Order: sequence, then C-alpha cells, then structure tokens
Amino acid sequence: MTPNTARRNETSRRAILTAAFDLLQEVGYAKVSIEGIATRAGVGKQTIYRWWPSKGAVIFDAFLLLSEGAEGEPPTLPDTGDLAADLRLVLRATVEEMNDPRYEQPMRALATEITLDPELAAAYAQRLDGPLREAKRRRLRSAQQAGQLADDVDLDVAVDLIWGPVLNRWLYRSGPLTTAYADRVVTTALDGLRPRRPGE
Amino acid sequence: MTPNTARRNETSRRAILTAAFDLLQEVGYAKVSIEGIATRAGVGKQTIYRWWPSKGAVIFDAFLLLSEGAEGEPPTLPDTGDLAADLRLVLRATVEEMNDPRYEQPMRALATEITLDPELAAAYAQRLDGPLREAKRRRLRSAQQAGQLADDVDLDVAVDLIWGPVLNRWLYRSGPLTTAYADRVVTTALDGLRPRRPGE
Repeated sequence: MTPNTARRNETSRRAILTAAFDLLQEVGYAKVSIEGIATRAGVGKQTIYRWWPSKGAVIFDAFLLLSEGAEGEPPTLPDTGDLAADLRLVLRATVEEMNDPRYEQPMRALATEITLDPELAAAYAQRLDGPLREAKRRRLRSAQQAGQLADDVDLDVAVDLIWGPVLNRWLYRSGPLTTAYADRVVTTALDGLRPRRPGE
Repeated sequence: MTPNTARRNETSRRAILTAAFDLLQEVGYAKVSIEGIATRAGVGKQTIYRWWPSKGAVIFDAFLLLSEGAEGEPPTLPDTGDLAADLRLVLRATVEEMNDPRYEQPMRALATEITLDPELAAAYAQRLDGPLREAKRRRLRSAQQAGQLADDVDLDVAVDLIWGPVLNRWLYRSGPLTTAYADRVVTTALDGLRPRRPGE
C-alpha cells in the first residue's frame, strides 16, 4: 500500500465511522443501514463491506474511534488521594454523559447489540470496556494499598458495585439519574449497608 | 360478554402468550412475528391485533403471565432474620434463572426492548419490576428496623447495589455469573468497601 492509499483509506474509514455515529443519533439504530452510512460518508457500499461484516460491527468501531485518546493513551482515573471525592467526580461525569441527548441513542444501540450478540460482547469487554475497567481497578488498588479499602475486597466486585447501579438505572430507566444519586451510590458502596460504629 | 365468550377469550389469550414465549426461546426476538405467534397459537392474526398493538407488547404480557403468582399474590422475599443468608438465597436463585437456557433468549429480548422503548420501560417498572422491587425494599426495611442496616441507608440505592451487579454481569457478559459471585456481591454490599474494625 502506498502512503497515499493508506491516507485515503484512513480518511474513508473515519468518514464512515463518523457517518454511522451521526446517523445513530439522528434516526436510531433500527433505521441505520449500510446503504445510509455509505451515502452519508460519500463512499460505495462495497467499501464498507470490504472492512466490516455487519452494521453492528461498523457501529462498534464508531464507538471505538470515539473512545480513542489523543495519542491512544490508556484511560486513567483521577487519584488525589481522596477516594470518595475521585469516585464522585468520575460517576457524576458518567451520569452527565448518559443524560446527554447526543449519546442517548448511540449508547442504547450499543447496549442492545451487546446484550444480544455474544461475539460483540466479547469484543466490547476486551477493546472498549477492558481498558476502562483496568483503570478503575488500578484506582481502587491504589486505595487498597493506602488502607482505604478493605484488604479482602474483590476489586472486580467493587467496580461492579460502584458503576453497576448507574448503568442499570440508565438502561432500565428505573429512577431519576442525577448526580445526587451518583453521590449516594459512592457513599453507600464505600460504607456498606450494615451499620458502622460512630466515627468509623 | 357471556361466560363462555370470556372463557374462550382467556383461553386464546393464554395460548397466544405461551406461543410468544415459546417462539422467543426457539428462534430469538428478531425472528418472532405476529404471524408466527398466531399460527403457533391457532388463532387469526386479527385476534392478536385486537388485543395488542405490537410484538413488543405481546412479549411483555407473556412475561407478565409468567410472573403472576398462583393467586396473583404479591412477591415476597424470605425473612428468616438472617439478612445475609436471605439475600444470598435470593441472589443465587436469580443467577440460576439467568443461566437457564430456557430464559436466556426471552429475557435478553425483554431487556433490549426496555432499553430502546421508554413506554415499555415505564410499563416494566410499574407492572413487572415494581412489585418485585417493593418486596426487596420491604425485606431491607425489616432489616433496618432490626438494626441490621444503617439508619441512613437509602433503600432504593441498597436494592441497586445488591441486584445491579448480577444484572449487569449477565447483560454485558462481563465475567462468569456464578453463585460464588452472587455471594461475594452480598457480602461486599453489606460490609462496604472501606475497612471495618475487627469484629465489627
């Protein structure tokens, strides 16, 4: 491949993925078609089929493009030493993203694709959620080493307790998804449901 | 309506809902059609359209039929006085149901319909999840009154912390969904992530 071809390919790839994401926002997953993406991106349908086997696969890569850091750096969580404050900051940002109408349709489309398709779920777990989950575990491990987390806490269970409720409330629309809710989840996960002694 | 007509209607209704549920298990949501349900149930398509506006609505009612107790009694959680043991019992049963291949396809179909359709999500929250959530809150309230839960715990957040992680792990297939995982979620939610003093 000449440098020119590589550059043209990369330009087409980005145009296709951007078109897929824009259409998701505008018309919803059910109405997005390979044909529609091709028209919007100004490429032929065959160009899309050469690189992706299905609509779900294009959309997955559109999310991957969105999540790529500037230099492909792995995600990190803030670490000020104050675990509760750091978690509140991150979880509030998640809540705000979930409440952003621009992400509403695309994120729901991705969620349903993952729910129905085990292969896409595996790709999601490895390529999209994997690096993020590792960043969460890293932040919690640092807190554990500082004595702010019990030694016997399973860090994967901890990640699920902190991030699971917000994701569920969003998916199932089971209650108002507010920053106050996010704060309460952080406090409750850290303190636990059983009473603590005063001052503990 | 004569008693005979009412009985015939109820028989048709159950035949349709059972057919819908069976087809969901066998072919998956995408391939279920009103026509297929009608054929399987031995009724005309018009009979189905007379009672339900869409495929999603039929399937929702099929779940509702499944969840109806013998005498329409509201669901209850076991209350032996040992909160941790009771929660482990209930959460293990949930895990077993989620791992049951008979429920796999139908439950995923319901989950994706709820994710995409706000109206169905509202019906689910009110008619299917509502009574169950109230039963969970009731069990936790009884524990709170017995001093086994901190006074300031928000019972809705508590329900989300206990049941959310298992639901997520199932939806996103983010890890093995075992009874050991369910047990660990219960312990971690009750104790919290922060260290406790020895013996507490």
